[in-house]
Amino acid sequence: MKIATYWHEGMRRVGRLFADGACVSPFLIGGRAYENGALALFERLAAGEELELGDPVPFAAVQLDAPLPRPRRNIFCVGKNYHAHAREFAQSGFDTSLAKGGDEVPTEPIIFSKVPESVIAPGAAIRIPAGVSDAVDYEAELAVVIGRGGRGIPAGRAMEHVWGYTIVNDVTARDWQQRHKQWLMGKSFDTFCPMGPWLVSADEFDGADTRVRCWVNGELRQDARTTDLIFPIPKLIETISAGITLYPGDIIATGTPAGVGIGFQPPRYLQPGDLVRIEIDGIGVLENPVVLGQG
Amino acid sequence: MKIATYWHEGMRRVGRLFADGACVSPFLIGGRAYENGALALFERLAAGEELELGDPVPFAAVQLDAPLPRPRRNIFCVGKNYHAHAREFAQSGFDTSLAKGGDEVPTEPIIFSKVPESVIAPGAAIRIPAGVSDAVDYEAELAVVIGRGGRGIPAGRAMEHVWGYTIVNDVTARDWQQRHKQWLMGKSFDTFCPMGPWLVSADEFDGADTRVRCWVNGELRQDARTTDLIFPIPKLIETISAGITLYPGDIIATGTPAGVGIGFQPPRYLQPGDLVRIEIDGIGVLENPVVLGQG
Repeated sequence: MKIATYWHEGMRRVGRLFADGACVSPFLIGGRAYENGALALFERLAAGEELELGDPVPFAAVQLDAPLPRPRRNIFCVGKNYHAHAREFAQSGFDTSLAKGGDEVPTEPIIFSKVPESVIAPGAAIRIPAGVSDAVDYEAELAVVIGRGGRGIPAGRAMEHVWGYTIVNDVTARDWQQRHKQWLMGKSFDTFCPMGPWLVSADEFDGADTRVRCWVNGELRQDARTTDLIFPIPKLIETISAGITLYPGDIIATGTPAGVGIGFQPPRYLQPGDLVRIEIDGIGVLENPVVLGQG
Repeated sequence: MKIATYWHEGMRRVGRLFADGACVSPFLIGGRAYENGALALFERLAAGEELELGDPVPFAAVQLDAPLPRPRRNIFCVGKNYHAHAREFAQSGFDTSLAKGGDEVPTEPIIFSKVPESVIAPGAAIRIPAGVSDAVDYEAELAVVIGRGGRGIPAGRAMEHVWGYTIVNDVTARDWQQRHKQWLMGKSFDTFCPMGPWLVSADEFDGADTRVRCWVNGELRQDARTTDLIFPIPKLIETISAGITLYPGDIIATGTPAGVGIGFQPPRYLQPGDLVRIEIDGIGVLENPVVLGQG
């Protein structure tokens, strides 16, 4: 099942894609198209509720929003979770988590967060904040969406808590990431979390083995399989839920492969006018332009 | 003005304290006691709306909840923001932000977050998660509550965006903080954010010069004035809002003074049966017991 949040005739809807994405049918509550937040509807879906569907509309007639436009809390993100990226990040000089005696390849998952309001829709612009940072980088990532919540979830049962998947671009201001040591600031600027194009349910998609690619202006920059994850999805869920209760709609961005801008010498940061395209096989494409914004 | 969230006759209310805290009057919406989330009501107050008040009830008849029991997103927290604490943290060996060439005293604010669901009420138990961490520490902190939102707020105008203040205990699992490099995990376990006892509006309180103290079982452990903050409140708001839009109800915990458990040799972690008492002059007292919990 693919679930999209979208605008149609001036209203925001949540619906299900059909016919290979050629059309989308809105979920109905009490016979009427659902008009509240996508998260509240997702919580009902994740609880296994069967929801009615309205008449399909052609996909071309709608405009996509992020599938969960306003997550319930900060998005959990994983740092340095592909071997080749852990090396390129260490060599870039930007990795302040490389403390005295620190490991280039982490021995435990590194988890930080992005504020929920950083989420933007497919097609919406990533804003380089003029005068604040000119070192803005892309990070293509597979994101896990939690269905059933819980705490103390063992890795062996973690996949029972995964409702599905989407794509996230974990946009990062490298200067802020470095200067402020903890990564929240450099990861959370407004527009720094493109998300989409939709959610794909776990029964239709194998997050453990898929291909993640990212192009900037048509040039392939990142290309890896999730089989290369240092900490696979069940381990991430076990780690995060050990002391923190997970809730339906929680999002875990699983880390980015090698090939980010700071992997180049000199770094190749995003520039106004750039177009970032991320594709994950089995999910789809998330594409966002880059603009220069005020402050 | 002091604003409390509390339970009375089985309902959760938000009200205003009167008569030196001897009684509390619930805010009314359309003549009825307000029954929705404290955050939604706080947003109306922060927007300057005048709200009716119902009949006062004796404070002894109510049970306090956290003033903002479920913040709109993760709580912004500041690391190493008192000189003496920056030194004790560096010397403890737990500070993984001390990278190669890193500074004991930070040159820019270190900002991380705690998940909103870690918030607990005054008097509620801090849970040491059995088998997950036995290195749980206290951190007494003055917390700023944002009234008017904004982005790109200069330090010189930052105080216009502060609605008021409360107390937060930034409880921390030191082993997780160290092992996972980024601090989100070690800071966000369930029950790790005692908050209260209420909000005090900025016109009644000077956050720039007040005394923060913390006792464990009656023994004074932390005792400092906010004049010792490395980065004062206006600088914190300027930094966080440079690229991130702030919203009404956002919470910024401003950092903890010296005297935390890992400041001792050997470290003095919280134990089941302990009682942590934080007092900030001009706000009040936040007291929470410590228990051992399952997983």
